[in-house]
Parts: sequence; structure tokens; C-alpha cells
Amino acid sequence: MSGVRAAAPQLAGLEPYDPKYLPAEAFLSANENPTDVDAALRAEIVREIRKTALNRYPDPLANDLRDLIAEANGLDRDQVLVGNGGDELLFDLALAWGGPGRTFLNLPPTFSVYEANARLTNTAVAEVPRRADFSIDEEAVLARVAAGDIDFAIVTSPNNPTGERAPEDFVVRLLEATDALVMVDEAYFEFSRRTMRPYLESHENLIILRTFSKAFSLAGVRVGYVMGSPGVIRELVKVRQPYSVDALSQAVARVVFANRASFEPGIAAIIEERARLTDALRTLPGVTPFPSDANYVLFRMDAADEAWAHLYERGILVRDFSHAPGLEGCLRATVGTPDQNDALVAGLRDFVMGRCDLR
Amino acid sequence: MSGVRAAAPQLAGLEPYDPKYLPAEAFLSANENPTDVDAALRAEIVREIRKTALNRYPDPLANDLRDLIAEANGLDRDQVLVGNGGDELLFDLALAWGGPGRTFLNLPPTFSVYEANARLTNTAVAEVPRRADFSIDEEAVLARVAAGDIDFAIVTSPNNPTGERAPEDFVVRLLEATDALVMVDEAYFEFSRRTMRPYLESHENLIILRTFSKAFSLAGVRVGYVMGSPGVIRELVKVRQPYSVDALSQAVARVVFANRASFEPGIAAIIEERARLTDALRTLPGVTPFPSDANYVLFRMDAADEAWAHLYERGILVRDFSHAPGLEGCLRATVGTPDQNDALVAGLRDFVMGRCDLR
Repeated sequence: MSGVRAAAPQLAGLEPYDPKYLPAEAFLSANENPTDVDAALRAEIVREIRKTALNRYPDPLANDLRDLIAEANGLDRDQVLVGNGGDELLFDLALAWGGPGRTFLNLPPTFSVYEANARLTNTAVAEVPRRADFSIDEEAVLARVAAGDIDFAIVTSPNNPTGERAPEDFVVRLLEATDALVMVDEAYFEFSRRTMRPYLESHENLIILRTFSKAFSLAGVRVGYVMGSPGVIRELVKVRQPYSVDALSQAVARVVFANRASFEPGIAAIIEERARLTDALRTLPGVTPFPSDANYVLFRMDAADEAWAHLYERGILVRDFSHAPGLEGCLRATVGTPDQNDALVAGLRDFVMGRCDLR
Repeated sequence: MSGVRAAAPQLAGLEPYDPKYLPAEAFLSANENPTDVDAALRAEIVREIRKTALNRYPDPLANDLRDLIAEANGLDRDQVLVGNGGDELLFDLALAWGGPGRTFLNLPPTFSVYEANARLTNTAVAEVPRRADFSIDEEAVLARVAAGDIDFAIVTSPNNPTGERAPEDFVVRLLEATDALVMVDEAYFEFSRRTMRPYLESHENLIILRTFSKAFSLAGVRVGYVMGSPGVIRELVKVRQPYSVDALSQAVARVVFANRASFEPGIAAIIEERARLTDALRTLPGVTPFPSDANYVLFRMDAADEAWAHLYERGILVRDFSHAPGLEGCLRATVGTPDQNDALVAGLRDFVMGRCDLR
């Protein structure tokens, strides 16, 4: 038996990202769209897949899809880059703008993958924590970038898992206060109806991340995209995997994007359900939901981990952040179908009332 | 207009990997299988795709596919990892075993992506060039690893683009001479009929890379896998993208792997055509084909770049390595269908004879 030397030191103690995706009846943990693409669209997808060569490498840059996205956003092809989910593009950002001797500005609590990517690429992480209500400490962020050592930052809007979007005027002030590359992660922007897109032309250091995984019901297909200045896109092309988006994913995404208007009623329904769910959570004693511009609601309560288990026993899977730094006592529930949301509220009510009886 | 600071310094001067995939009638540049999956299998693939939820995240680790691969190779699930093509796994290797202060041993000329990945991850590259006939300078490799600073190495077998496999006894000597992690890239092993698989149990520092892109006609679908010791696989899991293999690619790969025996006649035909193509190239004056254990043949000739253009004008796309270090004057042709191979040889004969007439 030969031995093997240890992996790189930055991996020591690192835990793989764990989505904690467990079998359940109601999947309310991963911010997916509760409704799959409809039958008509699925038939069109299958037609497109039937036409796709499997034995040939895909178009490396997914140019047909890129053109559709560019046109819809009033951009040129060279301002758009498609990735294997938003995840790949987040990693590419860290690889291209991070690295040894470089620094990433993070605004926690936020999506944990940002920090993990910084660590994997040996990028230093500077943090400006959010306030107790999860709003961005704007003046502290502006003061931090004034130090001049920040190479890139990510502002999540709406923020995951806390729910609120970043104020537009703050993002503009940030873009103007620094030459760091500022990514605005708009993975959930279809549920907030707000985008930083109008600032792309005037701010070369702005890059916007979007995904097909949420509003467009394609979490399984792995397609995301960024929009930015041609010079920034060119650098990301250098570090990306050449064939990262497979031919079938490109085909599916083309069909879905061309038919994106058909998702509009579903998005409107989720936005309505979000308000209904938030109001219902607010009626539960000891449960504090945070306002959300996304397709999920974060809420704080006592014994949140026990509440998580109580829900899970009833077939409802939500995301437990109750032991995550800055999110103590918090659970995050994806806005599901009306029935799923009702079951969630009923399960929580049952749990809360049970605890009241015990006192 | 705000400016944006430059990307990380290791990107300066870097060119994106360019497969030089141009429109053509005969695609003989990318070592794809010339035959797509057959109609019966495609029907089964479509049935599997119809059953796949698009709106739900895929199984992060593709465990069903992982189990199929593990079982076929007499391994446990934790000895296998599936990636978004072999490309992702090659990058994961550099990310996990490379990095600042660490060193990768390369045996050029070989697959250029290895060196690019080292550069992107700030890994130092040590080189032991192959001999003029592209055989590995075995004693030089063993002497180099004896220095003790090599953290990982890649031995490509068969080697791309030169064609021959690495001698088994040499790989064993290498595994025993070092505790560096040694990847044997067996992307083309189905065409060489030889694998280092039997050494996995006895050599913890061996990891084998395979792909569905070549023998299994799935270049468009992007699925590769590694087999290694559980401890090594565990480290690669830490650095991989959590959802890198989408649900459709998993579905297609499951169907194809379960039916892999049906690819056997196609593989045998390619092996036969390889011999026929090599023999035919040998009859052309001034053309020197190198022996191949893969599904492509490298050959050297005068004015190779002009020959490339001559072929391309006739609708035949081969890969031009004529200006690549160590591969001067070389073109690489994928073994295609008999008709494609005939057209390739006819086009080259035409070019060579035309040059003779000019003298």
C-alpha cells in the first residue's frame, strides 16, 4: 500500500457544501419553484432534445442562448456569459478576481457559497456584517471599500437567506466608491421585480448574476448567467470550464427563455403566497418572519431546531439556519403551493401551541 | 463610468482554451465518437428524461449513477466521484492537490488543460518532457519525483494527442516511488483495452479518470468520473461544485452506462478503422503517423498547417498542433467513419501529391 500526501492546506477542516436535501413530501428547503415546467413546454423541450446531437461537444459559450439573453436585456453577446448554474459563475468570479493576496468583501449573513469559494481560491475575506434586522450597514461598507484593498464584493439582492433586496441607491454609491468588481447576485430578482440592469452601461465594475433555477423552474438543469462589461466577461471566459454547459441544458434553457412570459402567472402567484405566508407566520406566538422580496421567508423562533424536526416528521422540509452565525433561531421556508404553505403554518402552529401547553 | 480593477495577475496573457471547433462536414478534431447513440437507446433516454423533474435540484453526488459505475468496477460508492465531464474533475484535482506552494508534474506534450488548470490555481508546474517518439522518459520521471516536492502528477494513458498508452510497469513504479497523488487519465481507455483499475486497492495514491465523452458518444452531455481511494474522493468532494452534474445528464448517463455493452461493436469498429487509417497514412510520402491506442491518430508532415487548410477547404476538420511545443508539424485526426477516414486520406494524398508536382 503506497500512501498519499495530504490535499492542499486550505481544505483542512473544510466541510463540503451540504444542501441538507432530505426526502420529504413538501420540499420547502431549496427555494425551488414548486411547479415544474408545464406539459406544453415539456413537449417542446423533448422535441428540442430529440434534435440535439449527444456525441458532439456542445457550443462552448452557448452562443444561441447567450444571444437570446442579450437581446432580452438590450445587450450584446459579449456582455453575457452562461454558466453551469449560478454556482459555476460564482466560482469563476472568485477564481478571476480573487486568489492569493486578493480580498473579497462579504456582507454576512448571506449565501455561504461565496465565502467557501474565497477559501478554495486562497482569497482573503473581509466582512461587514449586516445589522440585527439584516439590513446592510451601508456606511460601514463604504468605509471598508475606501481602504482600497477590496478586489471584489458580492451584494445579494434579494439577500439569501434573509430575504430583502439591497437598496438601489446604496449599490450605486458602492459602485462609485470603488473600482472593485461588484457582483449583484439577482438569483431571485424575478420575485423582487427590481434589477440593477440599468447601471451596466455606466458602471464597468458592475456584474449581475441571474439563474434559471428559481423563477424558471430549472434547478435540475443548471443554467445561470452573468451580465457585465465585455472586459470583465472576457476575464471570466479565461477561467471557466470550456464545455461547462452541456448541450441538453442549453436546449432546455433556450426553450424556457423563449417562453419566459409563460412563467409570469406562476411568479405572480408566488409573490401573492409570500405575503399570505408572511402574514400567517406573524399570527403565530413567538414566531417573527422577516420581510421578503424573494420566494422564501426567513423566520425566527424559540427552539427552532425542534420546530424543524416537528415539521420534518410531518413531511415538510424547511432549511434550518438556527445554528448558523448571525441567523440563530432562524428557519427559512420556500414559498410553496398554497396547500404546502398551509401545511407549514399548521405544523408550526401545532408546535408552538404544544410548547405553550407544556409551560 | 466607474472603472474596474484588473483580474488576478495569473490571468494576464492567458488565452481561453480554444477547441478550434469550426463548421465542417467531417468533424475529426475533437476525438468524439462518430456515431451518435442509436435510436433504441435514444428512445429510452427520452423516456428517462420525461420522468425527470426539472424544477428540483439534482442529486448532488449523482449517487444512482455512482452506484452503477462502482458496481461495474467492483468498487464501493465512496471510491467513485462523477463530474461535469472529465474537465471538472481535472480542475478539482488541481484545486485540491495544487495551489500556492504546491507542484504538479506534467509530461508534455500532453492534454493542455492540465497545465492551464495548474496556472489558474497558482500551482507550480514541473515538466519531464517526453522523448522524440513521445514515449515517457521513465527514469527522468522517477528521478524527478525523488526530489519529494511533487504533490500530484497526471499520466495520460493513452496520451492525448500523441496516442500511446503508458507502460503499466512504469505507472506502478511511479506509484511506489512517491506519495504524490498520481492521476491516470484513462479518457480513451476503451480504445486501448487496458486500465490501471487493478492497482486501486494496493495504491492509495492512484486515481483514475474516465469519461462518457468518447467511447459512449456523450461529449454533448458532459459526464466523467474518477475512481480512487475514499480519502482522496472525500477531498475532491470538498472542492467540487455541489450541483455540477445536472439531472438530465445524470439520467442520460444512467441509461447509457446500463447499456454500455451496446457500444462494444462501435468501439471494435473504431479500433479496426484506426489500424486501417494508420496504415493508409503510412503510404503517403512524407507523412509519419504515430502508433495509437486511442480513437485518434497523430501524424507529422511538412507544411502541416497548409495541409490542415487544404483538408478544411474540403469539409474535413482535423486538429492542428503544428505550432504547439513538441508537436511541430503534427496534425491529429479522430478516427471517423470509414467514409470520413477515406476522405481524410484522399485529401491528404491530394495535398502531398500537389506539393510533389510543384518541386
